[in-house]
Amino acid sequence: TIVSVLKNIDRPGWLEGKRVLVTAGPTQEKIDPVRYFTNPSTGKMGFALAGEAARLGAAVTLVTGPVQLDTPPGVDRVDVTTAEEMYQAVHDRFGTQDIVIKSAAVADYRPAITYDHKMKKQPGDYVVEMERTKDILKTLGKEKKHQFLLGFAAETTNPLGYGKEKLEKKNLDAIVVNNVAVEGAGFGHETNAAIYINRNFEETELPMMSKQQLAQHIFNQIKLDITHE
Amino acid sequence: TIVSVLKNIDRPGWLEGKRVLVTAGPTQEKIDPVRYFTNPSTGKMGFALAGEAARLGAAVTLVTGPVQLDTPPGVDRVDVTTAEEMYQAVHDRFGTQDIVIKSAAVADYRPAITYDHKMKKQPGDYVVEMERTKDILKTLGKEKKHQFLLGFAAETTNPLGYGKEKLEKKNLDAIVVNNVAVEGAGFGHETNAAIYINRNFEETELPMMSKQQLAQHIFNQIKLDITHE
Repeated sequence: TIVSVLKNIDRPGWLEGKRVLVTAGPTQEKIDPVRYFTNPSTGKMGFALAGEAARLGAAVTLVTGPVQLDTPPGVDRVDVTTAEEMYQAVHDRFGTQDIVIKSAAVADYRPAITYDHKMKKQPGDYVVEMERTKDILKTLGKEKKHQFLLGFAAETTNPLGYGKEKLEKKNLDAIVVNNVAVEGAGFGHETNAAIYINRNFEETELPMMSKQQLAQHIFNQIKLDITHE
Repeated sequence: TIVSVLKNIDRPGWLEGKRVLVTAGPTQEKIDPVRYFTNPSTGKMGFALAGEAARLGAAVTLVTGPVQLDTPPGVDRVDVTTAEEMYQAVHDRFGTQDIVIKSAAVADYRPAITYDHKMKKQPGDYVVEMERTKDILKTLGKEKKHQFLLGFAAETTNPLGYGKEKLEKKNLDAIVVNNVAVEGAGFGHETNAAIYINRNFEETELPMMSKQQLAQHIFNQIKLDITHE
Protein backbone atom coordinates (compact mmCIF):
# COMPACT_ATOMS: atom_id res chain seq x y z
CA THR A 1 0.00 0.00 0.00
CA ILE A 2 0.99 3.65 -0.41
CA VAL A 3 1.09 4.20 3.34
CA SER A 4 3.69 1.52 3.94
CA VAL A 5 5.79 2.68 0.98
CA LEU A 6 5.87 6.22 2.37
CA LYS A 7 6.73 4.85 5.79
CA ASN A 8 9.68 3.02 4.26
CA ILE A 9 10.87 6.20 2.59
CA ASP A 10 10.59 8.12 5.82
CA ARG A 11 12.34 5.53 7.90
CA PRO A 12 14.37 3.01 5.92
CA GLY A 13 14.49 -0.46 7.45
CA TRP A 14 17.39 -1.24 9.74
CA LEU A 15 18.37 -4.17 7.50
CA GLU A 16 19.01 -1.90 4.48
CA GLY A 17 22.28 -3.04 2.89
CA LYS A 18 22.34 -6.30 4.89
CA ARG A 19 22.17 -9.84 3.54
CA VAL A 20 19.85 -12.24 5.35
CA LEU A 21 19.53 -15.96 4.65
CA VAL A 22 16.54 -17.87 6.03
CA THR A 23 15.92 -21.62 5.77
CA ALA A 24 12.39 -23.01 5.87
CA GLY A 25 10.25 -26.09 5.49
CA PRO A 26 10.93 -29.80 5.88
CA THR A 27 13.35 -31.97 3.97
CA GLN A 28 12.40 -35.25 2.30
CA GLU A 29 14.71 -38.27 2.50
CA LYS A 30 13.90 -40.96 -0.01
CA ILE A 31 13.84 -44.71 0.40
CA ASP A 32 12.76 -45.10 -3.24
CA PRO A 33 10.86 -42.95 -5.81
CA VAL A 34 7.57 -43.28 -3.92
CA ARG A 35 8.57 -43.53 -0.27
CA TYR A 36 10.30 -41.01 1.97
CA PHE A 37 10.85 -39.78 5.50
CA THR A 38 9.86 -36.23 6.35
CA ASN A 39 8.34 -34.05 9.06
CA PRO A 40 5.26 -31.84 9.45
CA SER A 41 6.95 -28.45 8.85
CA THR A 42 4.87 -26.28 6.52
CA GLY A 43 7.51 -23.54 6.15
CA LYS A 44 5.18 -20.80 7.43
CA MET A 45 7.55 -19.52 10.16
CA GLY A 46 10.53 -19.32 7.78
CA PHE A 47 8.50 -17.65 5.03
CA ALA A 48 7.21 -15.07 7.55
CA LEU A 49 10.79 -14.37 8.67
CA ALA A 50 12.02 -14.00 5.07
CA GLY A 51 9.13 -11.65 4.23
CA GLU A 52 9.81 -9.55 7.34
CA ALA A 53 13.55 -9.31 6.56
CA ALA A 54 12.71 -8.08 3.03
CA ARG A 55 10.29 -5.49 4.46
CA LEU A 56 13.09 -4.29 6.73
CA GLY A 57 15.24 -3.67 3.67
CA ALA A 58 17.52 -6.73 3.58
CA ALA A 59 18.60 -8.66 0.49
CA VAL A 60 16.97 -11.96 1.43
CA THR A 61 17.71 -15.51 0.31
CA LEU A 62 15.15 -18.13 1.34
CA VAL A 63 16.37 -21.73 1.09
CA THR A 64 13.32 -23.92 1.41
CA GLY A 65 12.32 -27.56 1.39
CA PRO A 66 9.12 -28.69 -0.40
CA VAL A 67 6.24 -26.48 0.80
CA GLN A 68 2.94 -25.14 -0.54
CA LEU A 69 3.62 -21.41 -0.03
CA ASP A 70 4.07 -18.36 -2.24
CA THR A 71 7.44 -16.65 -2.15
CA PRO A 72 7.23 -13.35 -0.18
CA PRO A 73 7.75 -10.20 -2.29
CA GLY A 74 11.38 -9.27 -2.93
CA VAL A 75 12.78 -12.58 -1.68
CA ASP A 76 15.24 -14.71 -3.67
CA ARG A 77 14.06 -18.33 -3.29
CA VAL A 78 16.17 -21.49 -3.60
CA ASP A 79 14.27 -24.80 -3.62
CA VAL A 80 15.83 -27.94 -2.19
CA THR A 81 14.48 -31.38 -1.26
CA THR A 82 17.00 -33.24 0.89
CA ALA A 83 19.09 -32.38 3.96
CA GLU A 84 22.22 -32.74 1.82
CA GLU A 85 20.90 -30.23 -0.75
CA MET A 86 19.91 -27.88 2.10
CA TYR A 87 23.44 -28.15 3.51
CA GLN A 88 25.05 -27.35 0.16
CA ALA A 89 22.71 -24.43 -0.62
CA VAL A 90 23.26 -22.82 2.79
CA HIS A 91 26.98 -23.54 3.05
CA ASP A 92 27.69 -22.11 -0.42
CA ARG A 93 26.06 -18.80 0.55
CA PHE A 94 27.10 -18.49 4.19
CA GLY A 95 30.25 -16.41 3.74
CA THR A 96 28.47 -13.39 2.27
CA GLN A 97 25.58 -13.23 4.75
CA ASP A 98 25.10 -10.90 7.71
CA ILE A 99 22.28 -12.78 9.43
CA VAL A 100 21.42 -16.47 9.01
CA ILE A 101 18.21 -17.89 10.47
CA LYS A 102 17.82 -21.63 10.39
CA SER A 103 14.10 -22.29 10.82
CA ALA A 104 13.97 -25.31 8.49
CA ALA A 105 13.16 -28.67 10.02
CA VAL A 106 16.02 -30.61 8.45
CA ALA A 107 15.96 -34.39 8.77
CA ASP A 108 18.76 -35.54 11.04
CA TYR A 109 18.62 -39.06 9.62
CA ARG A 110 18.13 -40.37 6.09
CA PRO A 111 17.91 -43.90 4.66
CA ALA A 112 21.45 -45.21 4.13
CA ILE A 113 20.38 -46.54 0.71
CA THR A 114 18.00 -44.90 -1.76
CA TYR A 115 16.63 -47.24 -4.41
CA ASP A 116 16.10 -45.98 -7.99
CA HIS A 117 13.01 -48.15 -8.44
CA LYS A 118 10.03 -48.76 -6.21
CA MET A 119 10.79 -51.43 -3.67
CA LYS A 120 8.45 -54.43 -3.91
CA LYS A 121 6.56 -55.50 -0.84
CA GLN A 122 8.11 -58.52 0.82
CA PRO A 123 6.41 -60.92 3.18
CA GLY A 124 6.99 -59.88 6.77
CA ASP A 125 8.71 -56.93 8.37
CA TYR A 126 11.84 -55.14 7.32
CA VAL A 127 14.28 -52.61 8.70
CA VAL A 128 15.38 -49.34 7.17
CA GLU A 129 18.99 -48.54 7.93
CA MET A 130 19.34 -44.86 8.66
CA GLU A 131 22.44 -42.69 8.67
CA ARG A 132 23.03 -39.21 10.07
CA THR A 133 22.77 -36.19 7.81
CA LYS A 134 25.27 -33.34 8.11
CA ASP A 135 24.61 -31.00 11.04
CA ILE A 136 24.17 -27.70 9.19
CA LEU A 137 23.85 -25.47 12.24
CA LYS A 138 26.91 -26.96 13.92
CA THR A 139 28.98 -26.46 10.75
CA LEU A 140 27.85 -22.85 10.44
CA GLY A 141 28.53 -22.25 14.15
CA LYS A 142 32.10 -23.44 13.67
CA GLU A 143 32.71 -21.44 10.49
CA LYS A 144 30.99 -18.20 11.42
CA LYS A 145 32.98 -14.96 11.60
CA HIS A 146 30.89 -11.77 11.39
CA GLN A 147 27.54 -13.53 10.92
CA PHE A 148 24.68 -13.43 13.41
CA LEU A 149 23.45 -17.01 13.58
CA LEU A 150 19.96 -17.82 14.87
CA GLY A 151 18.68 -21.36 15.34
CA PHE A 152 15.30 -22.85 16.20
CA ALA A 153 14.48 -25.68 18.56
CA ALA A 154 11.22 -27.60 18.47
CA GLU A 155 11.01 -29.89 21.45
CA THR A 156 8.26 -31.76 23.23
CA THR A 157 10.18 -32.30 26.49
CA ASN A 158 12.21 -29.71 28.46
CA PRO A 159 12.35 -27.26 25.52
CA LEU A 160 14.12 -24.50 27.49
CA GLY A 161 16.92 -26.68 28.83
CA TYR A 162 17.45 -28.27 25.45
CA GLY A 163 17.40 -24.88 23.70
CA LYS A 164 20.15 -23.46 25.92
CA GLU A 165 22.25 -26.55 25.43
CA LYS A 166 21.86 -26.27 21.65
CA LEU A 167 22.66 -22.54 21.71
CA GLU A 168 25.97 -23.19 23.45
CA LYS A 169 26.98 -26.44 21.76
CA LYS A 170 26.42 -25.07 18.26
CA ASN A 171 27.91 -21.62 18.94
CA LEU A 172 24.73 -19.72 18.03
CA ASP A 173 24.03 -16.05 18.70
CA ALA A 174 20.44 -16.76 19.63
CA ILE A 175 17.86 -19.51 19.58
CA VAL A 176 14.06 -19.48 19.32
CA VAL A 177 12.56 -22.31 21.33
CA ASN A 178 9.04 -23.39 20.68
CA ASN A 179 7.24 -26.15 22.43
CA VAL A 180 5.44 -28.07 19.70
CA ALA A 181 3.42 -29.94 22.34
CA VAL A 182 1.48 -26.73 23.22
CA GLU A 183 -1.88 -26.46 21.43
CA GLY A 184 -1.70 -23.90 18.61
CA ALA A 185 2.09 -23.64 18.58
CA GLY A 186 4.57 -24.91 16.03
CA PHE A 187 4.15 -27.15 13.00
CA GLY A 188 1.35 -26.33 10.61
CA HIS A 189 -0.36 -23.77 12.81
CA GLU A 190 -0.94 -20.14 11.89
CA THR A 191 0.18 -19.14 15.38
CA ASN A 192 3.22 -19.86 17.47
CA ALA A 193 4.46 -19.24 21.00
CA ALA A 194 8.17 -19.17 21.72
CA ILE A 195 11.03 -18.06 23.90
CA TYR A 196 13.94 -16.11 22.40
CA ILE A 197 17.24 -16.80 24.16
CA ASN A 198 20.34 -14.76 23.34
CA ARG A 199 23.98 -15.75 23.84
CA ASN A 200 23.94 -14.31 27.36
CA PHE A 201 21.11 -16.73 28.15
CA GLU A 202 18.66 -13.83 28.50
CA GLU A 203 15.18 -15.16 27.83
CA THR A 204 12.39 -13.15 26.19
CA GLU A 205 8.99 -14.74 26.18
CA LEU A 206 7.05 -14.28 22.95
CA PRO A 207 3.46 -15.28 23.77
CA MET A 208 1.02 -16.92 21.33
CA MET A 209 0.68 -14.73 18.25
CA SER A 210 0.60 -15.03 14.47
CA LYS A 211 3.78 -16.22 12.76
CA GLN A 212 3.92 -12.83 10.99
CA GLN A 213 3.92 -11.02 14.34
CA LEU A 214 6.40 -13.46 15.79
CA ALA A 215 8.72 -12.75 12.84
CA GLN A 216 8.57 -9.03 13.68
CA HIS A 217 9.35 -9.72 17.35
CA ILE A 218 12.26 -11.99 16.46
CA PHE A 219 13.83 -9.27 14.29
CA ASN A 220 13.31 -6.76 17.11
CA GLN A 221 15.25 -9.10 19.41
CA ILE A 222 17.99 -9.60 16.82
CA LYS A 223 18.27 -5.82 16.46
CA LEU A 224 18.64 -5.42 20.23
CA ASP A 225 21.32 -8.12 20.36
CA ILE A 226 23.27 -6.77 17.39
CA THR A 227 23.08 -3.18 18.72
CA HIS A 228 24.31 -4.19 22.17
CA GLU A 229 27.31 -6.06 20.88
CA THR B 1 -23.98 -22.67 -13.55
CA ILE B 2 -27.55 -22.69 -14.82
CA VAL B 3 -26.54 -24.44 -18.05
CA SER B 4 -25.08 -27.44 -16.27
CA VAL B 5 -28.00 -27.65 -13.87
CA LEU B 6 -30.43 -27.75 -16.82
CA LYS B 7 -28.23 -30.35 -18.49
CA ASN B 8 -28.49 -32.49 -15.38
CA ILE B 9 -32.25 -32.20 -15.38
CA ASP B 10 -32.44 -33.10 -19.06
CA ARG B 11 -30.09 -36.03 -18.83
CA PRO B 12 -29.48 -37.29 -15.31
CA GLY B 13 -26.04 -38.80 -14.71
CA TRP B 14 -25.73 -42.56 -14.98
CA LEU B 15 -24.57 -42.74 -11.36
CA GLU B 16 -27.85 -41.29 -10.04
CA GLY B 17 -28.89 -43.38 -7.04
CA LYS B 18 -25.46 -45.07 -6.79
CA ARG B 19 -22.99 -44.87 -3.92
CA VAL B 20 -19.36 -44.31 -4.84
CA LEU B 21 -16.43 -44.35 -2.42
CA VAL B 22 -13.08 -42.93 -3.52
CA THR B 23 -9.84 -42.96 -1.53
CA ALA B 24 -7.16 -40.33 -2.15
CA GLY B 25 -3.87 -38.91 -0.99
CA PRO B 26 -0.97 -40.35 0.96
CA THR B 27 -0.94 -41.74 4.47
CA GLN B 28 1.53 -40.65 7.14
CA GLU B 29 3.14 -43.22 9.45
CA LYS B 30 4.77 -41.66 12.50
CA ILE B 31 8.10 -42.50 14.09
CA ASP B 32 7.54 -39.75 16.70
CA PRO B 33 5.63 -36.44 16.86
CA VAL B 34 7.97 -34.75 14.37
CA ARG B 35 9.08 -37.56 12.08
CA TYR B 36 7.05 -39.70 9.72
CA PHE B 37 7.18 -41.91 6.70
CA THR B 38 5.02 -40.96 3.68
CA ASN B 39 4.86 -40.70 -0.13
CA PRO B 40 4.47 -37.91 -2.71
CA SER B 41 0.74 -38.37 -3.45
CA THR B 42 -1.06 -35.01 -3.60
CA GLY B 43 -4.57 -36.52 -3.85
CA LYS B 44 -5.37 -34.75 -7.14
CA MET B 45 -6.37 -37.91 -9.04
CA GLY B 46 -8.69 -39.11 -6.26
CA PHE B 47 -10.27 -35.68 -5.79
CA ALA B 48 -10.88 -35.45 -9.57
CA LEU B 49 -12.54 -38.90 -9.49
CA ALA B 50 -14.73 -37.97 -6.51
CA GLY B 51 -15.78 -34.70 -8.19
CA GLU B 52 -16.60 -36.51 -11.44
CA ALA B 53 -18.67 -39.16 -9.63
CA ALA B 54 -20.68 -36.40 -7.92
CA ARG B 55 -21.27 -34.65 -11.27
CA LEU B 56 -22.55 -37.97 -12.62
CA GLY B 57 -25.13 -38.06 -9.84
CA ALA B 58 -23.59 -40.45 -7.30
CA ALA B 59 -23.64 -40.09 -3.52
CA VAL B 60 -19.88 -39.81 -3.05
CA THR B 61 -17.70 -40.48 -0.02
CA LEU B 62 -14.07 -39.37 -0.31
CA VAL B 63 -11.72 -40.89 2.24
CA THR B 64 -8.52 -38.91 2.08
CA GLY B 65 -5.10 -38.74 3.70
CA PRO B 66 -3.50 -35.35 4.50
CA VAL B 67 -3.65 -33.19 1.34
CA GLN B 68 -3.89 -29.49 0.45
CA LEU B 69 -7.04 -29.66 -1.69
CA ASP B 70 -10.58 -28.32 -1.48
CA THR B 71 -13.39 -30.86 -1.25
CA PRO B 72 -15.26 -31.13 -4.61
CA PRO B 73 -18.88 -29.87 -4.50
CA GLY B 74 -21.42 -32.39 -3.21
CA VAL B 75 -18.81 -34.81 -1.87
CA ASP B 76 -18.82 -36.20 1.68
CA ARG B 77 -15.22 -36.06 2.92
CA VAL B 78 -13.61 -38.24 5.62
CA ASP B 79 -10.10 -37.23 6.72
CA VAL B 80 -7.63 -39.85 7.90
CA THR B 81 -3.87 -39.83 8.55
CA THR B 82 -2.56 -43.39 8.83
CA ALA B 83 -2.98 -46.58 6.78
CA GLU B 84 -4.83 -48.14 9.72
CA GLU B 85 -7.32 -45.23 9.87
CA MET B 86 -7.76 -45.48 6.08
CA TYR B 87 -8.47 -49.20 6.42
CA GLN B 88 -11.09 -48.65 9.12
CA ALA B 89 -12.81 -45.77 7.29
CA VAL B 90 -13.07 -47.72 4.03
CA HIS B 91 -13.91 -51.08 5.56
CA ASP B 92 -16.71 -49.60 7.70
CA ARG B 93 -18.39 -48.15 4.60
CA PHE B 94 -17.69 -50.87 2.02
CA GLY B 95 -20.91 -52.88 2.39
CA THR B 96 -23.20 -50.07 1.23
CA GLN B 97 -21.17 -48.94 -1.78
CA ASP B 98 -21.75 -49.68 -5.48
CA ILE B 99 -18.37 -48.57 -6.78
CA VAL B 100 -15.15 -48.31 -4.79
CA ILE B 101 -12.07 -46.64 -6.29
CA LYS B 102 -8.86 -46.96 -4.35
CA SER B 103 -6.60 -44.22 -5.68
CA ALA B 104 -4.94 -43.42 -2.32
CA ALA B 105 -1.25 -44.17 -1.97
CA VAL B 106 -1.46 -46.06 1.30
CA ALA B 107 1.80 -46.88 3.04
CA ASP B 108 2.42 -50.62 2.94
CA TYR B 109 4.86 -50.35 5.84
CA ARG B 110 4.83 -48.33 9.04
CA PRO B 111 7.32 -47.98 11.89
CA ALA B 112 6.77 -50.87 14.29
CA ILE B 113 7.04 -48.43 17.23
CA THR B 114 5.74 -44.86 17.41
CA TYR B 115 7.32 -42.74 20.16
CA ASP B 116 5.18 -40.19 22.05
CA HIS B 117 8.11 -37.78 22.36
CA LYS B 118 10.68 -36.61 19.88
CA MET B 119 13.53 -39.08 19.64
CA LYS B 120 16.88 -37.55 20.56
CA LYS B 121 19.71 -37.80 18.07
CA GLN B 122 22.19 -40.51 19.00
CA PRO B 123 25.77 -40.81 17.82
CA GLY B 124 25.98 -43.00 14.74
CA ASP B 125 23.39 -44.75 12.62
CA TYR B 126 20.19 -46.47 13.63
CA VAL B 127 17.58 -48.72 12.11
CA VAL B 128 13.83 -48.16 11.84
CA GLU B 129 11.95 -51.41 12.24
CA MET B 130 9.01 -51.44 9.87
CA GLU B 131 5.95 -53.67 9.88
CA ARG B 132 3.35 -54.29 7.19
CA THR B 133 0.09 -52.36 7.22
CA LYS B 134 -3.20 -54.08 6.36
CA ASP B 135 -3.74 -54.66 2.65
CA ILE B 136 -6.98 -52.72 2.13
CA LEU B 137 -7.51 -53.65 -1.52
CA LYS B 138 -6.93 -57.34 -0.90
CA THR B 139 -9.41 -57.31 2.00
CA LEU B 140 -12.05 -55.56 -0.12
CA GLY B 141 -11.40 -57.96 -3.02
CA LYS B 142 -12.10 -60.90 -0.70
CA GLU B 143 -15.22 -59.38 0.86
CA LYS B 144 -16.83 -57.85 -2.21
CA LYS B 145 -20.25 -59.00 -3.38
CA HIS B 146 -22.07 -56.58 -5.70
CA GLN B 147 -19.40 -53.86 -5.61
CA PHE B 148 -17.33 -52.77 -8.60
CA LEU B 149 -13.80 -52.48 -7.24
CA LEU B 150 -11.17 -50.40 -9.04
CA GLY B 151 -7.54 -50.21 -7.96
CA PHE B 152 -4.57 -48.13 -9.02
CA ALA B 153 -1.00 -49.21 -9.61
CA ALA B 154 1.91 -46.79 -9.68
CA GLU B 155 5.02 -48.59 -10.80
CA THR B 156 8.38 -47.57 -12.19
CA THR B 157 9.27 -50.97 -13.69
CA ASN B 158 7.04 -53.23 -15.84
CA PRO B 159 3.84 -51.36 -14.85
CA LEU B 160 1.57 -53.36 -17.19
CA GLY B 161 2.72 -56.79 -16.02
CA TYR B 162 2.51 -55.75 -12.41
CA GLY B 163 -0.91 -54.16 -12.92
CA LYS B 164 -2.40 -57.35 -14.36
CA GLU B 165 -0.91 -59.42 -11.56
CA LYS B 166 -2.41 -57.05 -8.98
CA LEU B 167 -5.81 -57.07 -10.74
CA GLU B 168 -5.98 -60.85 -10.51
CA LYS B 169 -4.38 -61.39 -7.12
CA LYS B 170 -6.60 -58.84 -5.39
CA ASN B 171 -9.81 -59.82 -7.20
CA LEU B 172 -10.40 -56.37 -8.71
CA ASP B 173 -12.88 -55.47 -11.45
CA ALA B 174 -10.43 -53.10 -13.07
CA ILE B 175 -7.10 -51.41 -12.48
CA VAL B 176 -5.64 -48.11 -13.67
CA VAL B 177 -1.92 -48.42 -14.21
CA ASN B 178 0.22 -45.36 -14.41
CA ASN B 179 3.91 -45.26 -14.93
CA VAL B 180 5.19 -42.71 -12.46
CA ALA B 181 8.59 -42.72 -14.19
CA VAL B 182 7.12 -40.98 -17.30
CA GLU B 183 7.63 -37.20 -17.27
CA GLY B 184 4.37 -35.38 -16.47
CA ALA B 185 2.55 -38.48 -15.22
CA GLY B 186 1.57 -39.45 -11.70
CA PHE B 187 2.42 -37.94 -8.33
CA GLY B 188 2.03 -34.21 -7.95
CA HIS B 189 1.48 -33.47 -11.63
CA GLU B 190 -1.63 -31.85 -13.08
CA THR B 191 -1.60 -34.42 -15.88
CA ASN B 192 -1.48 -38.18 -15.99
CA ALA B 193 -1.13 -40.96 -18.55
CA ALA B 194 -2.49 -44.40 -17.79
CA ILE B 195 -3.78 -47.73 -19.02
CA TYR B 196 -7.17 -49.00 -17.87
CA ILE B 197 -7.33 -52.80 -17.64
CA ASN B 198 -10.61 -54.58 -16.98
CA ARG B 199 -11.13 -58.06 -15.53
CA ASN B 200 -10.97 -59.62 -19.02
CA PHE B 201 -7.49 -58.10 -19.33
CA GLU B 202 -8.70 -55.72 -22.05
CA GLU B 203 -6.41 -52.70 -22.06
CA THR B 204 -7.51 -49.17 -22.91
CA GLU B 205 -4.77 -46.61 -23.26
CA LEU B 206 -5.56 -43.23 -21.76
CA PRO B 207 -2.91 -40.86 -23.15
CA MET B 208 -1.48 -37.83 -21.30
CA MET B 209 -4.33 -35.55 -20.26
CA SER B 210 -5.49 -33.56 -17.24
CA LYS B 211 -6.51 -35.53 -14.16
CA GLN B 212 -10.04 -34.09 -14.59
CA GLN B 213 -10.24 -35.51 -18.11
CA LEU B 214 -8.72 -38.79 -17.00
CA ALA B 215 -11.40 -39.05 -14.30
CA GLN B 216 -14.08 -38.69 -17.00
CA HIS B 217 -12.45 -41.39 -19.14
CA ILE B 218 -12.13 -43.75 -16.18
CA PHE B 219 -15.86 -43.43 -15.43
CA ASN B 220 -16.63 -44.02 -19.12
CA GLN B 221 -14.65 -47.25 -18.91
CA ILE B 222 -16.37 -48.28 -15.68
CA LYS B 223 -19.74 -47.65 -17.33
CA LEU B 224 -18.78 -49.86 -20.30
CA ASP B 225 -17.63 -52.63 -17.96
CA ILE B 226 -20.69 -52.46 -15.73
CA THR B 227 -23.07 -52.34 -18.74
CA HIS B 228 -21.41 -55.34 -20.39
CA GLU B 229 -21.63 -57.53 -17.34
